[in-house]
Amino acid sequence: MRAVVVTPGQKGSGRVEDIPTPERAAEQALVEVIDVGVCGTDLEILHGLYGEAPEGDDYLVIGHENFGRVVEAPNDGGDLSVGDYVVSIVRRPDPVPCPQCAAGEFDMCSNGLYTERGIKGLHGFMAQYYTEVPDYIVKLPGSLAGIGVLIEPLTVVEKGVLQTEAIQNRMTWDPKEAVVTGAGPIGLMATLLLRAKGYEVFTLDLVERDSHKARIVEACGAEYVKGDEEPLAQLAERVKGIDLIVEATAVPQVVFDAIDAIGPNGVVCLTGVSAGARTLSVPADKLNLEMVLENKVVFGTVNANRRYFEAAVNDLTKFEELWPGLCCRIITRRVPVDDFEQALKPRPGIDIKSTVSFSG
Amino acid sequence: MRAVVVTPGQKGSGRVEDIPTPERAAEQALVEVIDVGVCGTDLEILHGLYGEAPEGDDYLVIGHENFGRVVEAPNDGGDLSVGDYVVSIVRRPDPVPCPQCAAGEFDMCSNGLYTERGIKGLHGFMAQYYTEVPDYIVKLPGSLAGIGVLIEPLTVVEKGVLQTEAIQNRMTWDPKEAVVTGAGPIGLMATLLLRAKGYEVFTLDLVERDSHKARIVEACGAEYVKGDEEPLAQLAERVKGIDLIVEATAVPQVVFDAIDAIGPNGVVCLTGVSAGARTLSVPADKLNLEMVLENKVVFGTVNANRRYFEAAVNDLTKFEELWPGLCCRIITRRVPVDDFEQALKPRPGIDIKSTVSFSG
Repeated sequence: MRAVVVTPGQKGSGRVEDIPTPERAAEQALVEVIDVGVCGTDLEILHGLYGEAPEGDDYLVIGHENFGRVVEAPNDGGDLSVGDYVVSIVRRPDPVPCPQCAAGEFDMCSNGLYTERGIKGLHGFMAQYYTEVPDYIVKLPGSLAGIGVLIEPLTVVEKGVLQTEAIQNRMTWDPKEAVVTGAGPIGLMATLLLRAKGYEVFTLDLVERDSHKARIVEACGAEYVKGDEEPLAQLAERVKGIDLIVEATAVPQVVFDAIDAIGPNGVVCLTGVSAGARTLSVPADKLNLEMVLENKVVFGTVNANRRYFEAAVNDLTKFEELWPGLCCRIITRRVPVDDFEQALKPRPGIDIKSTVSFSG
Repeated sequence: MRAVVVTPGQKGSGRVEDIPTPERAAEQALVEVIDVGVCGTDLEILHGLYGEAPEGDDYLVIGHENFGRVVEAPNDGGDLSVGDYVVSIVRRPDPVPCPQCAAGEFDMCSNGLYTERGIKGLHGFMAQYYTEVPDYIVKLPGSLAGIGVLIEPLTVVEKGVLQTEAIQNRMTWDPKEAVVTGAGPIGLMATLLLRAKGYEVFTLDLVERDSHKARIVEACGAEYVKGDEEPLAQLAERVKGIDLIVEATAVPQVVFDAIDAIGPNGVVCLTGVSAGARTLSVPADKLNLEMVLENKVVFGTVNANRRYFEAAVNDLTKFEELWPGLCCRIITRRVPVDDFEQALKPRPGIDIKSTVSFSG
């Protein structure tokens, strides 16, 4: 079958190869891949900064933002049938799990021995087929067939927001205003989710007001804020007492501006990472003082376990009800596997989420 | 009656004056003050950096770390009797409370309109008597009569640790190792509380190993770490996966070192503030990346509501059972009110908590 592979650690080694179609074990499903989204982690793997081949292989099939359809169900049938639309969970625990992994919280793995399909020790989904056991498969309704590839990025945001709510159970909290920094796929998923939850949402980016991203922000009833015209500090003056900031740029200045801008008892949820090594001069006494005197919380969030995948399926369905067709506009480019390199080069001002697509 | 007062905003205006003894209203208790602790906030008020007089007065009685005894009970009796040892809660809501204050969470006040006895808009406790309604009074057993003045600093730590536990309810968490930065009164209270809760505790400071502070750390079974010999980063190498850091220095470098040093899923609880305006160059990309990939939390905590005062009474009792007489050694100097200025000048290497004492 056709697959996009890399030699881990080797920059520019990304290529399409014919590799053996995986053989399904009795307890597994065989899934035909439909769309695989490309994200920053994939680019870092293609640059050789990241990625680890499965034991015994010298290559890694990349791709973790997956969407496909069951073509062979597990022998015992169970909950999966041929034709089911499915998304697979990315992270897996070590055979000897840490306490968090043992509880199904792979996303909170505390010993670092997890594996991740397409990233760390397991082949990914950017291939015509993959096999998987039902424990790591989540079903989607057919109504989401066009946008199922958005589930995985949405899970990251689901985790961020549900963890925020869990953290704030520590107190009386009735949040109203949220800010999202960055209008890429994660920022847009956050914008939609927070709107669906009833927040007043302000989404910052640097793109033009008439850009595709800005229009999607406004289409769901959020306000697009052009960050170079109204920076976070200024926005915080206008929107008194911001309750939640979902940070999705990984730009150091934006991260620290967010900590400064969040209101009393507010939460900054960090979702983005950068492979950079930038230092920044920060007003350290002021930030510390504000965090203490205003009971502020800053936390980082990575990955997602089954709970967040299930929440994402529910919420993506809700997005379609609230704003029919809007999510589809976030997928701006679908390229066939042999042209996968095109998916790595977003067209400025146009592309949001690009996918490598295998059928349809 | 004798009282220590300041003219708010005026540096060096601290003085002892004879002011009228407050008249008890029917629903109030009259409390005779025994000890009032001196802390950094008092020093800032004496330096004119902070502090606000009650409406209609041009002076403020300072002091919030209070301990006293009821000499006249409220008319309706209720739960308070003459002779009861008591500590009063420091913060009060605005007459029109915010949602948090309405729920009794004055410490999480979100509109900033709270008042604080001895700090903001209400007279404090550094006087022979004060009056108070039972809602803001917490009773202590007589066995704590010598160390009741430690309740208020302990409440700050109680809030920090109970909020940490509430935050971590978001996940499977079984914490084992805690680090406390700073062995002042707050750091020592944190050390004792975390030891009493069963943590392995490492308390960092710069004082000598044979100093009074270091000995108190070791007496409760914690390890004293001399920060200039084994900085946080090095300690984090030795103690893999630190679960909780209670930061009590407010030194910017220590704050950011703590964020770097905390382990996966760990929490940094910031308790200290500084009136400084220091900037710091930080490895911003690295800190953000670690926070995200390791699900780290950093939060600030200030003040304490009734719940934390009640927890502090229980835990101070527990400390006495576990380490009889140890807390008494934290109070290193008691000065009579007319010599209050001596309490503001800690003797290096000797003093931990100094109090202004009115009787006994």
